[in-house]
Amino acid sequence: MSYIDARVERSHRVVRDAAIAELAQVGWGAFTIESVAARAQVARSTVYRHWPDKLALVIDALEHHSEQPAPEETAPGRPRVVALVRHLAEVMADARRSAILPALIDAAERDPALRQLHRAFNDRRRRALAAALADAGAADPELIAIALAGAVVYSRVMGGRPLNPDRSEDLVTAVLGPDHGSP
Amino acid sequence: MSYIDARVERSHRVVRDAAIAELAQVGWGAFTIESVAARAQVARSTVYRHWPDKLALVIDALEHHSEQPAPEETAPGRPRVVALVRHLAEVMADARRSAILPALIDAAERDPALRQLHRAFNDRRRRALAAALADAGAADPELIAIALAGAVVYSRVMGGRPLNPDRSEDLVTAVLGPDHGSP
Repeated sequence: MSYIDARVERSHRVVRDAAIAELAQVGWGAFTIESVAARAQVARSTVYRHWPDKLALVIDALEHHSEQPAPEETAPGRPRVVALVRHLAEVMADARRSAILPALIDAAERDPALRQLHRAFNDRRRRALAAALADAGAADPELIAIALAGAVVYSRVMGGRPLNPDRSEDLVTAVLGPDHGSP
Repeated sequence: MSYIDARVERSHRVVRDAAIAELAQVGWGAFTIESVAARAQVARSTVYRHWPDKLALVIDALEHHSEQPAPEETAPGRPRVVALVRHLAEVMADARRSAILPALIDAAERDPALRQLHRAFNDRRRRALAAALADAGAADPELIAIALAGAVVYSRVMGGRPLNPDRSEDLVTAVLGPDHGSP
């Protein structure tokens, strides 16, 4: 990476971090490119050069803040299921990264464009989990994926206590049974 | 029930319905007793006579809008698990009753008093499900309860499509296995 590229990448990261912090603090309704630029201490034009609007910025920031582990990072089947559940549990247990979720859920209810992106974002991640579950021999990968992701999200937004990431394996065992996908 | 009691009960129901509709429309931040009274076409004093503040009104409205089926309505064990999951799925699939959930999730993040009540409300319902799961012989009733309730809530607020209540039994079978709690 050239010096210029590295500098641009760093400035993008600062703006994405500011976007996440701003969304968590003020919610979607009050979120503006201006306030993100002020928080990131960059010019508005710097933000607009890379992201055409607040929707594009939030989605890009989300993508960068919770990248799922790549398939090649884990063995297929059950280990990959556990890795994906643990990744989601770690995002939900991280106060900074999970603080935006309530704002996103509420905004998705009120703004059709954000709803579509929120849904597509979650669907993509859930499909990766369902694919890993199919590899692990789960009987109904789609429903099990919803139950596993649901348990983690529920704990954070309904129970008020995120699931301890160290319980990811227990959760997979409770839902999938002890025998599925073991070597 | 006397004529007076019936009239009071009807007026309470109108106010509770107005509270749910108002919360779904404007969110917690903009929610006021005044706007609920206006929507219900009653005097503010009528609302304040029964509910001291907006928190008390919202919680009471919630309780009345999603009463879980009582234990005596179903056979213990698996039938009761399915009945509780189906009840939650029906609430989530009902646009009017589930429209307040995103607002509540967001408000719970920002308002400590509401957070405590939101959490206590969900905990109580989840404990009823965990008790039914224990009766059904589930290995880890607490985690399974979170996975079942989580699947239903996730579908509504993350997937954008509520789970079809007719799939409640499939969900229980997928998560609990086909053998648990059958007669």
